[in-house]
Amino acid sequence: MPENRIRLSSLRDRIVPAEEAAALIGDGMIVGMSGFTRAGEAKAVPMALAARANAAHARGEPLRITLITGASLGNDLDKQMAEAHLLSRRIPFQSDPALRKAINAGEVMFVDQHLSETVEHLRTNQLGPIDVAVIEAVGITASGGIIPTTSVGNSATFAILAKKVIVEINLTQPEELEGLHDIYIPTRRPFREPIPVVTPESRVGLPFIPIDPEKIAAIVVTRKLDSASNVLPPDAETAAIAGHLMEFLKHEVKIGRLTNRLQPLQAGIGTIANAVMHGFIESPFGDLTMYSEVLQDSTFDLFDAGKLNFASGSSITLSKAKYDQVMPRITDYKSRLILRPQEISNHPEIIRRLGLIGINTALEFDLYGNVNSTHVGGTHMMNGIGGSGDFARNAYLSVFVTKSIAKGGALSSVVPMVSHVDHTEHDVDILVTEVGLADLRELAPRERARVIIANCVHPLYRDALSDYFERATARGGHTPHIIEEALAWHVRAREEGTMLPEKTRKIA
Amino acid sequence: MPENRIRLSSLRDRIVPAEEAAALIGDGMIVGMSGFTRAGEAKAVPMALAARANAAHARGEPLRITLITGASLGNDLDKQMAEAHLLSRRIPFQSDPALRKAINAGEVMFVDQHLSETVEHLRTNQLGPIDVAVIEAVGITASGGIIPTTSVGNSATFAILAKKVIVEINLTQPEELEGLHDIYIPTRRPFREPIPVVTPESRVGLPFIPIDPEKIAAIVVTRKLDSASNVLPPDAETAAIAGHLMEFLKHEVKIGRLTNRLQPLQAGIGTIANAVMHGFIESPFGDLTMYSEVLQDSTFDLFDAGKLNFASGSSITLSKAKYDQVMPRITDYKSRLILRPQEISNHPEIIRRLGLIGINTALEFDLYGNVNSTHVGGTHMMNGIGGSGDFARNAYLSVFVTKSIAKGGALSSVVPMVSHVDHTEHDVDILVTEVGLADLRELAPRERARVIIANCVHPLYRDALSDYFERATARGGHTPHIIEEALAWHVRAREEGTMLPEKTRKIA
Repeated sequence: MPENRIRLSSLRDRIVPAEEAAALIGDGMIVGMSGFTRAGEAKAVPMALAARANAAHARGEPLRITLITGASLGNDLDKQMAEAHLLSRRIPFQSDPALRKAINAGEVMFVDQHLSETVEHLRTNQLGPIDVAVIEAVGITASGGIIPTTSVGNSATFAILAKKVIVEINLTQPEELEGLHDIYIPTRRPFREPIPVVTPESRVGLPFIPIDPEKIAAIVVTRKLDSASNVLPPDAETAAIAGHLMEFLKHEVKIGRLTNRLQPLQAGIGTIANAVMHGFIESPFGDLTMYSEVLQDSTFDLFDAGKLNFASGSSITLSKAKYDQVMPRITDYKSRLILRPQEISNHPEIIRRLGLIGINTALEFDLYGNVNSTHVGGTHMMNGIGGSGDFARNAYLSVFVTKSIAKGGALSSVVPMVSHVDHTEHDVDILVTEVGLADLRELAPRERARVIIANCVHPLYRDALSDYFERATARGGHTPHIIEEALAWHVRAREEGTMLPEKTRKIA
Repeated sequence: MPENRIRLSSLRDRIVPAEEAAALIGDGMIVGMSGFTRAGEAKAVPMALAARANAAHARGEPLRITLITGASLGNDLDKQMAEAHLLSRRIPFQSDPALRKAINAGEVMFVDQHLSETVEHLRTNQLGPIDVAVIEAVGITASGGIIPTTSVGNSATFAILAKKVIVEINLTQPEELEGLHDIYIPTRRPFREPIPVVTPESRVGLPFIPIDPEKIAAIVVTRKLDSASNVLPPDAETAAIAGHLMEFLKHEVKIGRLTNRLQPLQAGIGTIANAVMHGFIESPFGDLTMYSEVLQDSTFDLFDAGKLNFASGSSITLSKAKYDQVMPRITDYKSRLILRPQEISNHPEIIRRLGLIGINTALEFDLYGNVNSTHVGGTHMMNGIGGSGDFARNAYLSVFVTKSIAKGGALSSVVPMVSHVDHTEHDVDILVTEVGLADLRELAPRERARVIIANCVHPLYRDALSDYFERATARGGHTPHIIEEALAWHVRAREEGTMLPEKTRKIA
C-alpha cells in the first residue's frame, strides 16, 4: 500500500478487510455507493455484503437495504446483491439482467429517476438520510478528501451527506486519475447561486470530495478492475444511422444554423449512440466538444482522430481493448477531460445554457414522436430512463436513434402508440433509424406522422402504419388515433410473438 | 393621444389605422404577436387582419400566416382568426373553442410547445424568421423602447428578431404599468452566461424592450380592455383539493423538510390552481413568494391577506371584479411584482435553482402517476401543455391537481393508463383530487398505484381500478398493465359515453 494513496496518515489504521467494513451496514439502512455506467463502483464491500446477506438469510435473519448509486454497476454486483435478496429498493438506474428480473417480479422496488435529480431529493430530505456511503477512490488527500476513480456519479453528495463513509482504495486505478475530477456542489436553497459552468472546459470545483475525515469509518484496499463496456462494434445499420445524422448536420451547417464545430455533443450509453459518435470521425466537422454523462470508446477515438477538443462527463466506460490503450496514457488525455458529479454533467441549467446536441437511444417511438426508452411491452423494465430526460428536454437538438426493427423483424421500433412514454413529443426533435431521418421540428402531429412514415419505418411495417394513420386521421383529432387499436401491435407481440399482421407474415 | 405615450417624437407620425398596419402582413408570413393567458395581446391589428382575410378569401386570394404568440389570446381573437381561415400554423398555445375545433379537424397545424422554448427556436433559426411582430404597449420610451402592458410573454424576442414591428398603444392600459417589467434576454451561445435571477425579486434587465426604433413600421392606438379571466370561483371540491394540499404541506413543515415560508410557489392557469392558491389565505404559511407564469386573482388576494411578499410572473390575468379593484391601485402593488419574458418566468435554470413548489392541473392521470394535460380521449387537443412541463420537470415539488371525476361521473380522471402523456411518472411527485392526496416520492410504480387507488380515485371507480391493478400485477412487470385493456376505459367513453362499467352504472 503506497503511502501516497492515504496521505492523511491518521487514517491509515482504518484499513480493514471488506467483510469488516460491510458489517457497518445493517438491515433497513439506506446506502449510497459509487458507480456510474459500470465505472468506478465500490467492488469489495458490496460483494462482502451480498455474501453476508446470503448467510444472514440462511440463518433466518433479515438483511435488506435501499441501495442508491450513480447509475449501473459493473462486476455483476447488482446481480449478486439481487440474488442475495439484499435489495429492497434500488435507485436511480440499473442495467443488470438478474436485478431486472427481480424488479419485474415486484421483489425489488425500483425507483427510475432522472439522473440529475437524485441528489436534490437527498439534500432536501425527501430521500435519505444516507446511513453509509461506500466510495471507490484512487486515494485520500492530506485533508481527508476522497479522490474518485473512473466515475464521479453521485459519490460526492453521498459522502458529504452520509453518517459514515467507507472508502475502497483501488490500487489498479492509476494514481494519475487525480486531477481529472471537478467536484462542484450547488449551494443550498434559498441562496443557491448560478452554477458557473459556461463551457465544457469550465473547472469550477475541487479535484477531490471534501469531507470530514472523521466520518471515514473504514478503508478497504481492492485490486479489481472495472468491468469492460459491453458495447458492440458498429454494424451496417448503426453506420447507416450515423450516416443519416451526418448528412442532416451537414445540411444544418450549409443553411447557416450551425457551424462545423456544431454544438457540444452528448451521447447516451450503448451500442447505437457509440456508433453514431464514431460517425463523426469521417465527417467534415471538427474542433468538437462533448458535454455528456458517459465517455465511451468513441470519445477517445475522436480525440485520436483529432476531431474532439474536449470532453466533460461523469464516467469513463471503455471496452477491454480501449481501456488497455487509454489508461496507460491517461496523462496525455487529462488536460482535455473533466469528470463531474452527475448532477452537474446532467444539469438542466447547463445543458440549456450550452445548447447541446443530445443523442439518445429509443426502445420504440410512435407516429407522433413520443419515445419509450425503458419498458418492453409497456410493462417490463429494461434499464431505466437514466440521463436521457435531462438531456432531451433541455438540448438545442434532441435526437433519438434506434434500429427500425428488432427480433429479426418480429418487432417494429416504430409503432402507432408507444406502450410507455419516457419522452413526450415536446422533447423529441429528430428521429433516426437505418431507414432514414425524420426532422420533426415545428411540425404538428399529423405532419410528424407523415415524415416518420416516409423516413423511419421499416418496409415490413410501412403499409400497416400508414393504414393506421389514414384511418385514424379520418376520425379526426389533433393527434389522430384509433384508440381501441392503438396498442394492438403490442398485444399481438405479446400473444403471437410478432407485431406483424398475419397476412404480412406470409409475405415476409 | 398624450405625448408621454410616444416619447420618441420622430415616431409620432407613424400612427396609422389598424387596417393600414395589418396590410404590412402578407400571405405566408410568420407573425409574432404579444399576448399571454388572455393578457396584453395586440387587439386591433389581428381583428383587422381577420377582416382582411375574410375579404381576401371572398375574392379568392390567399391570406394565411403562421401565428406565434406568448400563450392564449383574449377578445376572441383566436376565434376570429381561425374562423377567417387566416391561420395555417399556430404556436405554442391556445385555449379557444373555435380554434381548437379547427386544430382537431386538421385545418390548423398546431405546434404545442413548452412555453420556455419557443424563443430558443427562433433565436437559432429553427423557427422563423419573424416577418412582423405586433406588440401591445403602454407606450414607447425616448429611446424607442417598447413598454409592454399586462403581459411580457414572447414579446421581447419577437420585437428584437422581427424585420418590422407594429406597436399597438393601448390607452386603457394604465401608464403606471411602466416599471413593472424586467426584460432580460439570455446572451447568445456559445458565450451564454448564467441568468442572474437568484430570487423571485431579482431585477436583472430593462423596464422596456430595447429595439432599433427604425424597425417600428406602424403604431396603432387602441382602447380595448383585456378580456376578463374566465376562472370559476372555488367550490366544495376545489376547496377540498386545497385543504388536502395544505395538510400535506403542514406535515412537511412539521417533519422539518420545509419552513412556514415554504418555497416559491407556481400555479398553472385555471379554476383549480387558482382555488388551491386561495387555500393559502387561511393557512399557517406566510411570507410567501410566487415565481409563476400567470398571476391570477389569488395572487392579489394573497397580497391583500398579508400572506404573499412578492410575485414574479409573465402576465396578470384577472376577473372583471378583481381587475377593477387592482388596476386603479397598481402603483401600490408594483414594488411587489415583476413581469418577465416567459422564457425567464419558465426557465428550467431558474425553476431548479429556486426550488419551486409547482401546482398544475391534470386532465387525467393514471395508476402510475403519468399525467395527461392536453388530449381528450387521447386524440383531441384542449389547450396545450403550456408551461406545465417547464415547471413540473424542474420543481422541488411537482403537484398535479384535478377533480376525481368529470361529466357527472361519466369520466374518471384516474384511469388505468392515460390516453396521452404530457408528464411522465418521473416528473410527478404529488397528486391531489377532492378525495385525497397521493405522495408518490421515492415510490416504485406498484407502490404508486396502491397509494393512488387508496387516496385519489372517486368511489365510483375505485373497485374497477383496483381490480385492473390486481389482475395486471398478477401478470408481472415493473409497471403492470393488461395491455389489451389499458385503454378500455377510453374506448368505453368514446363508444358508450361513459367510463363506468355497465354493472356499476346500474348501481350508480
